[in-house]
Amino acid sequence: MAKLTKREDNYSQWYNELVVKADLAENSDVRGCMVVKPYGYSIWEKMQAALDKMFKDTGHVNAYFPVFIPKSYFSKEASHVEGFAKECAVVTHYRLKTADDGKGVEVDPKAKLEEELIVRPTSETIIWNTYKNWIQSYRDLPILVNQWANVVRWEMRTRLFLRTAEFLWQEGHTAHATEKEAIAETEQMLGVYADFAENFMAVPVIKGVKTESERFAGALDTYCIEALMQDGKALQAGTSHFLGQNFAKAFDVKYATKEGGLEHVWATSWGVSTRLIGALIMAHSDDLGLVLPPKLAPIHVVIVPIYKSEEDFQRVSERANEIKKALQDRGFSVKFDDRDTHKPGFKFAEYEMKGVPVRLAIGPKDLENGTVEVARRDTLAKELVTFENVEARVVELLDDIQNNIFQKAKQFKESNTRSVDTYDEFKAVLKEDGGFVLAHWDGTPETEDRIKEETKATIRCIPLDAQAEEGKCILTGKPSKQRVVFAKAY
Amino acid sequence: MAKLTKREDNYSQWYNELVVKADLAENSDVRGCMVVKPYGYSIWEKMQAALDKMFKDTGHVNAYFPVFIPKSYFSKEASHVEGFAKECAVVTHYRLKTADDGKGVEVDPKAKLEEELIVRPTSETIIWNTYKNWIQSYRDLPILVNQWANVVRWEMRTRLFLRTAEFLWQEGHTAHATEKEAIAETEQMLGVYADFAENFMAVPVIKGVKTESERFAGALDTYCIEALMQDGKALQAGTSHFLGQNFAKAFDVKYATKEGGLEHVWATSWGVSTRLIGALIMAHSDDLGLVLPPKLAPIHVVIVPIYKSEEDFQRVSERANEIKKALQDRGFSVKFDDRDTHKPGFKFAEYEMKGVPVRLAIGPKDLENGTVEVARRDTLAKELVTFENVEARVVELLDDIQNNIFQKAKQFKESNTRSVDTYDEFKAVLKEDGGFVLAHWDGTPETEDRIKEETKATIRCIPLDAQAEEGKCILTGKPSKQRVVFAKAY
Repeated sequence: MAKLTKREDNYSQWYNELVVKADLAENSDVRGCMVVKPYGYSIWEKMQAALDKMFKDTGHVNAYFPVFIPKSYFSKEASHVEGFAKECAVVTHYRLKTADDGKGVEVDPKAKLEEELIVRPTSETIIWNTYKNWIQSYRDLPILVNQWANVVRWEMRTRLFLRTAEFLWQEGHTAHATEKEAIAETEQMLGVYADFAENFMAVPVIKGVKTESERFAGALDTYCIEALMQDGKALQAGTSHFLGQNFAKAFDVKYATKEGGLEHVWATSWGVSTRLIGALIMAHSDDLGLVLPPKLAPIHVVIVPIYKSEEDFQRVSERANEIKKALQDRGFSVKFDDRDTHKPGFKFAEYEMKGVPVRLAIGPKDLENGTVEVARRDTLAKELVTFENVEARVVELLDDIQNNIFQKAKQFKESNTRSVDTYDEFKAVLKEDGGFVLAHWDGTPETEDRIKEETKATIRCIPLDAQAEEGKCILTGKPSKQRVVFAKAY
Repeated sequence: MAKLTKREDNYSQWYNELVVKADLAENSDVRGCMVVKPYGYSIWEKMQAALDKMFKDTGHVNAYFPVFIPKSYFSKEASHVEGFAKECAVVTHYRLKTADDGKGVEVDPKAKLEEELIVRPTSETIIWNTYKNWIQSYRDLPILVNQWANVVRWEMRTRLFLRTAEFLWQEGHTAHATEKEAIAETEQMLGVYADFAENFMAVPVIKGVKTESERFAGALDTYCIEALMQDGKALQAGTSHFLGQNFAKAFDVKYATKEGGLEHVWATSWGVSTRLIGALIMAHSDDLGLVLPPKLAPIHVVIVPIYKSEEDFQRVSERANEIKKALQDRGFSVKFDDRDTHKPGFKFAEYEMKGVPVRLAIGPKDLENGTVEVARRDTLAKELVTFENVEARVVELLDDIQNNIFQKAKQFKESNTRSVDTYDEFKAVLKEDGGFVLAHWDGTPETEDRIKEETKATIRCIPLDAQAEEGKCILTGKPSKQRVVFAKAY
């Protein structure tokens, strides 16, 4: 297996190679659409299971809405149409016919739709058009629905997981009687995302709100979690939107209040996508390949047999299967790689590439000594453990790896978060170090735009935990009351 | 809650009303596309979980392929294009623009795709175009991949769950070195579907193979399971296709054999869809609403409190919560309906409509007597059970209900499966009783077509367990070696 390009030589190429070599995904022949391969998909399944449980534990249920949205729906919410209805897949016909030359098929011009259908880029419009019929009174509220689905946005420049024309995601869409309740929901779901990012993905995040110009099209407030990648660029890992009454007004959704009035309903929406797999890769992996947090690893432990004779193989296999069973009984996913078509060294490199957290190697010498070689993927450290202690040590290690990669990412984030007070300093930090830059901003979109134009850095968020601090905007010198988070971003 | 139309008065209307009143699904404003509501979706989640486990236990893994398929792919397999590329959703453009009047949006004529994209009606073509790059040698085989996805077929007449333009399904696509292995896989997956239908859905099925004219477009053999609905019509509940080397040849997928040769790969595909929910409804439900097998019921037990005073409510709730906890600890899904906005009678009717298998009612009198009223949904039988015995009785009942509805459906199927030997008898049985009709057929598509035209009955399958029996075709009198299964079908 050819080695990866090193991160320091070409980070972007390192990423692209890793995604393919670790067997996570590949580009399909359909422009911008990816194939998520079984190993990559099994990481997504782990993410889905953890998130789905968190959604259900907070009272949400799943449902499914049509993949097609009539074109006119997008025009109903004024800012939404600007954000979403432009770069999209448009269905105009519903039939093909045999081509005139008798070969192949062509669009049947007689089968033109009266109104074009858009393949959903996000589902607020079709869902609020449906909620209209579900909501009459305060007794029907709240509605706490989530959807797991595919969505399509016609991106011009695509990268596996990070930006693809089609991607998989979940989108929560909730309806509430009061503004307060809707804001509480928006914040609760941001908390769920931050919890998932930190405790499952082992990726520390900053929680914040977007500036007006970075808001979701149709939202009054967009909350987000922002993560830092190893190249010093930020990645938005999840968003939770407070939609106010915008969609309720656009689709005429009112409810009878307890007091006998009639009010528009309050809304939220929130989502994360297969983009998280890109974040996971870029946050932890190294020049040997993927590094996975045990909580999201499809395989926790791989056992590689070392042998020359068939007899040795039999003896080693017996021991390996005992360990495999013991670990499986404790709920871990264990693979015993007994392929005779590949050498141990090849297998070691393969599982390093695939980020399997713990590797056990057992040879005839280990049988004699009653030991097993235990290697951890995150630090690459190896140790000899007695057979009796293997099970306990593996359990301990998996826990340790989950913590260690989180701490490592946290230290990286902390040492790459810098406060600056002048524009020159700001530009220097962005050029030399990247990372999160905390700086004062005068609160205007004009300043935000000019900084973006001149430095390519955007305001990732106004952090929720920021301390009030009087200061001056790095660009205009106008007064500011708190620092915001700037970074170049994916 | 208004009552359902009775099955004997109008079966079709009964079904349509039930789907809506039990809160399973509804028609969306997008022609032919349904909204699967939370309660209906939770049945689908139960089905998915059980099937996914069965797929994984038989060595399969999940992956995800693009929703769009280039138009030309369909023409590569001659019979496939006839079956699938005709009634489909065609994406022709990738951008909208603000309309000239400044209101709304319209298709941007400059953003026309070079080649149209079809929203997948099934994924053989895109998947085999991908497998081409995954398969070089016998070491790469078998590939055992499944996909959970949405698909679109532009049906003209749609019915919730049974036939919708968009539906949810799983599609397995496997690649094998030998014909024998591929046939074994096709048969194995048919077995998985039959097992699921009978042991989870409690729906007995006939396993068989389709006649040539009913085969999947591109298959050499289509295996199927056929179920019988209460109105005497058959419903195809799952199919497993032996595709031979058709798709490997169409997409040029060859592998190097162990012996150094180069051969085309052998293929299967198999799928079930949200149509199964339609089958589940029609197999068991009654004039009061849904009847669900406990293994697929989102809520196993509902507890309804009976009370007048607030004090009674408190005392009853305490007891209810004890029972709820005890049953939840055993892994059951329990709902305690403590809404004070609805009367017990309303709640009873609601959970009957929703098919919750077991209902417990507890009032002040029960507290005095140390009893609980236990009602089972399938037979509507009620009994008083002492508080100490409730837990054990519920566990027993859930098991009993699962068995009972299967036995009932099995008896129905058996008493509605009739052997006939003349065409007159055949027509009379179809007219008066419906059901499965076992009859001799001369094996020609012409006869099959004429029977279909004259009676609306189709050959559901050539049953796998049929006994050899010399006979004469009911239409032509030509010789036949076994009976086939005819029925009118959904």
